[in-house]
This record gives sequence, structure tokens and C-alpha cells, in this order.
Amino acid sequence: MSRSPGRKQENHKISRELFVLTYGALVAQLCKDYENDEDVNACLDRMGYSIGIRLIDDFLARSAVKKCRSYSETADVIAQVAFKMYLGVTPSVSCSSATGNEFSLILDKNPLVDFVEELPAERASLCYCNLLCGVIRGALEMVHLAAEVSFLQDRLKGDAVTEIGITFLRKPEDRKHRRN
Amino acid sequence: MSRSPGRKQENHKISRELFVLTYGALVAQLCKDYENDEDVNACLDRMGYSIGIRLIDDFLARSAVKKCRSYSETADVIAQVAFKMYLGVTPSVSCSSATGNEFSLILDKNPLVDFVEELPAERASLCYCNLLCGVIRGALEMVHLAAEVSFLQDRLKGDAVTEIGITFLRKPEDRKHRRN
Repeated sequence: MSRSPGRKQENHKISRELFVLTYGALVAQLCKDYENDEDVNACLDRMGYSIGIRLIDDFLARSAVKKCRSYSETADVIAQVAFKMYLGVTPSVSCSSATGNEFSLILDKNPLVDFVEELPAERASLCYCNLLCGVIRGALEMVHLAAEVSFLQDRLKGDAVTEIGITFLRKPEDRKHRRN
Repeated sequence: MSRSPGRKQENHKISRELFVLTYGALVAQLCKDYENDEDVNACLDRMGYSIGIRLIDDFLARSAVKKCRSYSETADVIAQVAFKMYLGVTPSVSCSSATGNEFSLILDKNPLVDFVEELPAERASLCYCNLLCGVIRGALEMVHLAAEVSFLQDRLKGDAVTEIGITFLRKPEDRKHRRN
């Protein structure tokens, strides 16, 4: 990072519109580069991952959150602190498995698609916002939490809400200590 | 646009860090796609132009600025209202020609390069932030002001400041009415 250590407290906020349009330009470029939606999705996920592993430092420094003690607490921090901080929205969280390692972040409104009406017919499998999944996955990995992150519902595809699924991958020691 | 007309006043701000890293991913992708820096620069300019012609509506609606009566006033609005609104910084403005149609926006700090240390040696001609030039050019065109916009100095290339040059292209009727 090129930040000077002694910099003053700065305005960390920028206009969402510029971000949304720039993100749209990125997705459009990838759609030019890759014929298959799956390749675009994978590329967005990879890019997001690279962003997530860098953004986590900024997040931990600015949020001052402490180590989470459960997957549930982690999911809440992602929704209530990270989404709020970076995208200005707070998804609701639901736990979607009895085993307690699968969560859904539900967005009534997705701030990344403000200027997008709907996906073109030939791009029906595109996960337009897949960058977000990569960001979450990358950031979690840097705090030693392996997770699978993907879109389960998407308003751009006609679903009622936008839903991001997070499945924390249990480590062997988790299983060892798990109560039966 | 997919915005619902009745939406409430919303938080238009997002975190700059996410934008900066996403923009970095966009530039990196274009560097993969194009071997020549000039092609990357041209692509960033085109993308910016497409963004500018859309962003101007948002700008006019939110800023409520009135029609500018001179190039000088226009340059001031770009620096003091638009840059402040979209990037959270205010460049200083200087008029760099006796004919009054060339201006420089001078940024002591470029908010788009927070995480960029320096350009790789093989990308010495890259105008990393060229998207901004396209945005300004596109937005100006939508208010019937043709302009050439380019980076004149760039801290990423070792210059002391970052300087964006705007040359307003005089229309024939300007010349007709110009006082001698």
C-alpha cells in the first residue's frame, strides 16, 4: 500500500453511482473477453478473492471487531458491519442449516445493480455481482475461515430477493470437538 | 435505470477502498487484454466516456448546479462540485492558456491510486486513471461542451502532482461572437 502512515483521518466515502457504473464497465469487459457466463462468473470470483484478501486489513483496522466466536457471529459481522461499511446496506441474515454452518445474506436491494435493468437474454447464467462472493471468500480465508460463497437467488434473474449463501467449511478439529 | 421513482433519500456513499480495489481489478484485466499501454488507455477512456454520459444526469439532479456561463466556471464546478461529490477530493484549478479554454485540475492526492505503489516497468505509458478523463469528456459532451481531457502529470509516473488537462474545443459560433 502506498498510504503514508501519518495521514489524517480522511473521507473514506465516495459516490456509489461512480462505483456502480465502473463495476458495470468491468462486467461488460469480461463479457467481451469470455463467451461463457461461467467463465465470467469465475473471473469475477477470482477478482473478488484478490480484493477480499487485501480489504480484510482495512476492515479489521476500521471496524475494530473482535474475533468471532461462532459462524453465526461471523455471518452477522459480515452483514451488519462489513456490508454496511463497504456498500452502505445491511442484509438480513438467516441460518439455513441444522448443522449451523450455512447462512444466507438476504438483500432486498442490491446496491451494485442500480443502473442495471435486467440481464441480456444471452447472459442468463451470469452472476452479475459474483465479485462480492469472491470478496467475502477471500476476506474470510484471511481470518482462517474457509467458506464457499455463491448467489442462491438474484433479483436480476427474476427472484424476489438477492440471496448470497455462505457455507463455512468445517475443519477436522471442528468435527472432533463437535457435540453429538 | 432500474431505480424506483418513489424511493427514499438513500445513502449514496460507499467505501472508497472497495472502489479503488475494483478499479484496480478493471485496469489489471485490461492490461491482460491489451498488450499496448495506448490500447489500455483508449479503452479506459471509452469506458469512462460511457460512464460520463450516464453520470451527468445523476450529477445535475443531485448537485442542482445551474448552467455555467464560462469555461472557467465549468472547470470550477468539475473540481469543486463533481470531484467532491464522486471522489471526495477537490482538485485545485488553474487556467493554462491566454485564450481561456485550457484548464488544469491539480490533485495533490489521487483517490484512485491508494493501493497502487507504482506502475510496473513494462507499463510505463499506462495512464492508470484514464477512466476519469473519459468520464469528464462524456459528461461535458452531454451538456454540449466538446473537450479534450488527458493526464498531463501523474504521481504514479514520478511527477510531483497529478494533473488533468481539459481543453474546451471552441465551437464556430464562439469564434463568431468572440471579441477581438
